[in-house]
Amino acid sequence: MRRNVYDDDHEVFRQAVREFVRREVLPHVDDWAVDKGLPRSFWLAAGRQGLLGLEIPAGYGGSEAGDFRFNAVLMEELAAVNMALPSCVGIHADIVPPYLVHLASPEVRSEWLPRLSTGEAVAAMAMTEPGAGSDLGAVATSAVPDGDHYRINGSKTFITNGHTADLIVVAARTTPDAGPKGLTLFAVPADTPGFGRGRKLDKVGQPESDTAELFFEDVRVPKSYMIGELDRGFMHMMTWLPQERLSAAVTNLAHARQMVDETLRYATERTAFGRPVGAFQANKFLFADIVTRLDVTQAYVDQCVLAHTRGELTPVDAAKAKWWTAQVQNEVLDHCLQLHGGAGYMNEYRIARAWRDARVTRIWAGSNEIMKEIIGRDLGL
Amino acid sequence: MRRNVYDDDHEVFRQAVREFVRREVLPHVDDWAVDKGLPRSFWLAAGRQGLLGLEIPAGYGGSEAGDFRFNAVLMEELAAVNMALPSCVGIHADIVPPYLVHLASPEVRSEWLPRLSTGEAVAAMAMTEPGAGSDLGAVATSAVPDGDHYRINGSKTFITNGHTADLIVVAARTTPDAGPKGLTLFAVPADTPGFGRGRKLDKVGQPESDTAELFFEDVRVPKSYMIGELDRGFMHMMTWLPQERLSAAVTNLAHARQMVDETLRYATERTAFGRPVGAFQANKFLFADIVTRLDVTQAYVDQCVLAHTRGELTPVDAAKAKWWTAQVQNEVLDHCLQLHGGAGYMNEYRIARAWRDARVTRIWAGSNEIMKEIIGRDLGL
Amino acid sequence: MRRNVYDDDHEVFRQAVREFVRREVLPHVDDWAVDKGLPRSFWLAAGRQGLLGLEIPAGYGGSEAGDFRFNAVLMEELAAVNMALPSCVGIHADIVPPYLVHLASPEVRSEWLPRLSTGEAVAAMAMTEPGAGSDLGAVATSAVPDGDHYRINGSKTFITNGHTADLIVVAARTTPDAGPKGLTLFAVPADTPGFGRGRKLDKVGQPESDTAELFFEDVRVPKSYMIGELDRGFMHMMTWLPQERLSAAVTNLAHARQMVDETLRYATERTAFGRPVGAFQANKFLFADIVTRLDVTQAYVDQCVLAHTRGELTPVDAAKAKWWTAQVQNEVLDHCLQLHGGAGYMNEYRIARAWRDARVTRIWAGSNEIMKEIIGRDLGL
Amino acid sequence: MRRNVYDDDHEVFRQAVREFVRREVLPHVDDWAVDKGLPRSFWLAAGRQGLLGLEIPAGYGGSEAGDFRFNAVLMEELAAVNMALPSCVGIHADIVPPYLVHLASPEVRSEWLPRLSTGEAVAAMAMTEPGAGSDLGAVATSAVPDGDHYRINGSKTFITNGHTADLIVVAARTTPDAGPKGLTLFAVPADTPGFGRGRKLDKVGQPESDTAELFFEDVRVPKSYMIGELDRGFMHMMTWLPQERLSAAVTNLAHARQMVDETLRYATERTAFGRPVGAFQANKFLFADIVTRLDVTQAYVDQCVLAHTRGELTPVDAAKAKWWTAQVQNEVLDHCLQLHGGAGYMNEYRIARAWRDARVTRIWAGSNEIMKEIIGRDLGL
Repeated sequence: MRRNVYDDDHEVFRQAVREFVRREVLPHVDDWAVDKGLPRSFWLAAGRQGLLGLEIPAGYGGSEAGDFRFNAVLMEELAAVNMALPSCVGIHADIVPPYLVHLASPEVRSEWLPRLSTGEAVAAMAMTEPGAGSDLGAVATSAVPDGDHYRINGSKTFITNGHTADLIVVAARTTPDAGPKGLTLFAVPADTPGFGRGRKLDKVGQPESDTAELFFEDVRVPKSYMIGELDRGFMHMMTWLPQERLSAAVTNLAHARQMVDETLRYATERTAFGRPVGAFQANKFLFADIVTRLDVTQAYVDQCVLAHTRGELTPVDAAKAKWWTAQVQNEVLDHCLQLHGGAGYMNEYRIARAWRDARVTRIWAGSNEIMKEIIGRDLGL
Repeated sequence: MRRNVYDDDHEVFRQAVREFVRREVLPHVDDWAVDKGLPRSFWLAAGRQGLLGLEIPAGYGGSEAGDFRFNAVLMEELAAVNMALPSCVGIHADIVPPYLVHLASPEVRSEWLPRLSTGEAVAAMAMTEPGAGSDLGAVATSAVPDGDHYRINGSKTFITNGHTADLIVVAARTTPDAGPKGLTLFAVPADTPGFGRGRKLDKVGQPESDTAELFFEDVRVPKSYMIGELDRGFMHMMTWLPQERLSAAVTNLAHARQMVDETLRYATERTAFGRPVGAFQANKFLFADIVTRLDVTQAYVDQCVLAHTRGELTPVDAAKAKWWTAQVQNEVLDHCLQLHGGAGYMNEYRIARAWRDARVTRIWAGSNEIMKEIIGRDLGL
Repeated sequence: MRRNVYDDDHEVFRQAVREFVRREVLPHVDDWAVDKGLPRSFWLAAGRQGLLGLEIPAGYGGSEAGDFRFNAVLMEELAAVNMALPSCVGIHADIVPPYLVHLASPEVRSEWLPRLSTGEAVAAMAMTEPGAGSDLGAVATSAVPDGDHYRINGSKTFITNGHTADLIVVAARTTPDAGPKGLTLFAVPADTPGFGRGRKLDKVGQPESDTAELFFEDVRVPKSYMIGELDRGFMHMMTWLPQERLSAAVTNLAHARQMVDETLRYATERTAFGRPVGAFQANKFLFADIVTRLDVTQAYVDQCVLAHTRGELTPVDAAKAKWWTAQVQNEVLDHCLQLHGGAGYMNEYRIARAWRDARVTRIWAGSNEIMKEIIGRDLGL
Repeated sequence: MRRNVYDDDHEVFRQAVREFVRREVLPHVDDWAVDKGLPRSFWLAAGRQGLLGLEIPAGYGGSEAGDFRFNAVLMEELAAVNMALPSCVGIHADIVPPYLVHLASPEVRSEWLPRLSTGEAVAAMAMTEPGAGSDLGAVATSAVPDGDHYRINGSKTFITNGHTADLIVVAARTTPDAGPKGLTLFAVPADTPGFGRGRKLDKVGQPESDTAELFFEDVRVPKSYMIGELDRGFMHMMTWLPQERLSAAVTNLAHARQMVDETLRYATERTAFGRPVGAFQANKFLFADIVTRLDVTQAYVDQCVLAHTRGELTPVDAAKAKWWTAQVQNEVLDHCLQLHGGAGYMNEYRIARAWRDARVTRIWAGSNEIMKEIIGRDLGL
């Protein structure tokens, strides 16, 4: 069934992204997996292509379209490669910039937005802590006033782009014992004294993204580097949650779709007992189930994209899109791996890597359990 | 999230259907369950309300709008009562009329369409046979030319409206050993000599619909009562399959939605161990899962409704909608029954009846297995 | 794989039960479904056959073997007919007698055990209340001392054998506001003034068992009719929970097994598209899944039966057996119904009735949710 | 519930294996993961400990007990470390030796069994081919007579121990176009000219096992190195399938059990929102589900172990044990990973590696689909 979400402009942009992927990504992506991170050359190329400035106003070097569908196209095309690319690019270009554009001081905006737009600087977002996980009310990293600065102490973990980021938006506690209501956001340049990074974390999948622990020891940032209002960090984060969750949903589904297409091809070509593997009735029914699941889910994600484009997407509906697509992706990729037989267990096959990549989507950026808590609460339960 | 499928006209019609349900259905529906069938008074009232002529041209007393969304609204509102109503009305008003309107002789059209429109005559569709099930290629009921008549012999089973129908569209074999390609459709008036009905079948659910076996012993119908072309009955049926499947999907989902709303109310009011049942985390997460599933599925069904309204819905996409909604409905209602505890097992509670009603939706009008076969074949498998 | 639980003695008993079923049950069971209850003639026949006294000492007319495996054999053979028989007989012969034998006064024992053994009197157990469900701490039915009697007021619901029982073991509150610790058990003869019964409840399945609401208005029972100790009713009930849960598990599995055998026969004989239905690969795999599930589960149930025979079965392990078998039964019967196609939705087919019968097993006698709570608590959570 | 399968002798042996694991495995196992293979020092230590000779007669240096329960204990204890150890040791000590002991020439027995027993030689089994997967009828590797030798040509893939094996039992085609009936087994020493190995395969999990492609170019083996009879290789393999499948089942379950124990510990210690993670009701119920699933499955596997010890285990019952345990293991470990939150995605946590390790168990040694085909056929479908 025809998708009804994109116009010609979006499809033109899609072709540009595809060409970028073909030229700048596919020849190198295996190396990035070995290196466990995206090189600066990738970021600069993406900047040149205009992929990093979708949320940044023209005055700061971006191409802010005010139309989330361009972001969605970008995520879909990157997700057709793997899950790490849309994750790293999404943090940098889709998630961090709105905080700076709408809440940061002119000083921070002028200093950083142009460089995020070109890829000269890479951005990260640091919320999760070793002891806190999804529970932002338990954030312990502290920021205390110190003259015209704040002094930050603590540590963060599982930070995407953590090892290469030049600017990190950090959630820190400014009021003790106030749970989520005592958090404030700060922009922390990575060259600030006292800031340190742990080793790159060795993950189940997504080796192309550098994930790291970050350490803050008496890191002093000017008050102008506070993002938004004091003690309102949690509220600020809530504001952009729909977009973050929706981007995750778009990515989950596009990645799954790509792998199903490849698996269908494999199962049509690979024979066993004298027949294409996919022609055995149990497998045929399985494919029928899978494509139905994808199509049904796509309709919902597209509806969310349109709602978000109109500014109407609620955090709860975005939560539904996030957990459901993560669930569908994981179920579908598990079937796809199985349909590959022994080959599915070999990392040289894309499905093996895709299966590992996708596992985290039920956990990160608010686990499926957190999403259900949010949805259940919205039902008055 | 706002549904984007209906306009004001449809909502006006919805209010009319609701009022009809409140006035003409709810006071009597428990009696109809006992009587195992809808009385003629119901059909006449529905006819007066203009609910039966949505597919019938004005010239024959209908209100043919050429907009499937009115049908969808009608199905949704009837499905909020139970599954039998939209099933019986759907056969009569949504499924049979297009065959007559587009394929029948002027004689049949003039004779029957006005009476179907008023509810003076009730329609049924007879495809399934005791020995054939979903396999139309195995239909054995025969129709052989006999002067300017055809003589029909055989039997049909599981026929909705079978016990009260005045006109039955019958699929009969006109060419032996030709599988699906040797079938022809005939309109058979119930007062034709040789036509007989078995007892009303005792079903797991949907007692309000009369389901029967039908017998044909040398039933002679004029050649003008052939519907469409000789030996092309299967092709004709294919033509209206998308609408039949989509109507089933709309009904499945609307019924599930209604029961979830009621269950949520129940789980909010009913307490155990000092708390509303729905507030226990396991149940809260379950509700979160359920409403996500409904919302996601609604987006797909709505997309199909819009596609069908544009004349673009394929049989394969309709098959996806049919089996998926049946699956979702069954899973969701099973949870809803469980959430009612012991009350869920008592027929005086709506959920008990709804659970029984819904079980057949994975079987009738092409089982989920048949739907998957169709979808799998479309994938080239 | 050979089951290793039964000896020759048990198999001899099994043959006797089978013969009893063939002679006394199968010719009449359809009538009992219509009458919504088992007639006294059934109970007397079962008594004559020695099926009702397995837990009753010889001195009171029973055949107490002190070997649960005989109970298990009885449950298995009755469950091969339907779920209502083992339920009604289980309450009467498996669940109530131990309370009387081990906790009742000599007066109650002499008066009632011989008659329970012959079937002249039928027993019921009344715990559940309209407002309390599985939460025994919320039981509101009260028993207050009144001279050498207790005066009982309140109501109970969902009581199996409730409409025909001559003796009801009732859990009543003797200490207000003490939750489960303020309950006491009483034996209440049905002819005591003030005792009344509501209509037979109309259930989703198991029509052969009479389920009723019971009312107590100033029902006076002698103090000698207290069962066990004051305020220790809950503790007493805990004592026999393993046996009650295990009997439920044995029944669940035997019923499912019987229906799978019948469905396999059906799917081997019934053809579609030129082949036995069961030979389609998707169905073949489904049967493979089903029989694996049954065999795996049987091993666990048999292990529990042996443990209980040795007196070692814990309430927690019995809880595992109960919920798991209920789950497996429900899943398996749902598949079996589907494998019957349209016939599966017709009550004249056993599978239709079996599917309805089985639904309550995830709810009654401690729902699956309650069982998981118990198991989780045992894990220290 | 007490397991009823092991005697004191087995438990003494278990303690010895545990001590071996503590001393010889745990200090080194992380290095083996990096090296992608088990070093010879491991094999020699295991030989010294008497772990490799359970299937080898005393006359050849083994400790053949004729009691599979010792094998089961060995597998259980190795599986508590990871899945690669029992896989590698199982091939070497549990699967290959019976072929040599019962079917090989005296020459092969004398030459190789003592060295397999000490670990001086490592064994592998080569059935799977790049183009054939689970379909042994499609094996293309050929063996043609060449004087008093056979000349073998072809290639094999996914061969566990493939990179280090000194002796490989190879299934080769001796009769063209005869499907499974034209296969013969040969023992091929790795130093035979023409034998070559590809690189170690990079797998999703189990890095400690070396898996390789093997190449045979005019590899000449003496006729005395034929194992069993000409063209009866498939039949010979059938003979030991129950043991191979049962060993897989034992391993699957023991590995899952170990990880659940560790996860339960983690969820009891780790807090979120002020409570142990495992204490949230949704997680508590999940643990209840998981431990039930493990206990139920254990009962079946133990029943199979006892049956096999008596020589009564059928290939079909073993197939049930194999696929079911693989399924349970995969489901359970997926939940365990989720219960770890973000940590579950980090390879430094055991659960991350366990989850990857386990994925292949639904594929290798006959996929779940193959097992279901076998079971379905046994039902007459």
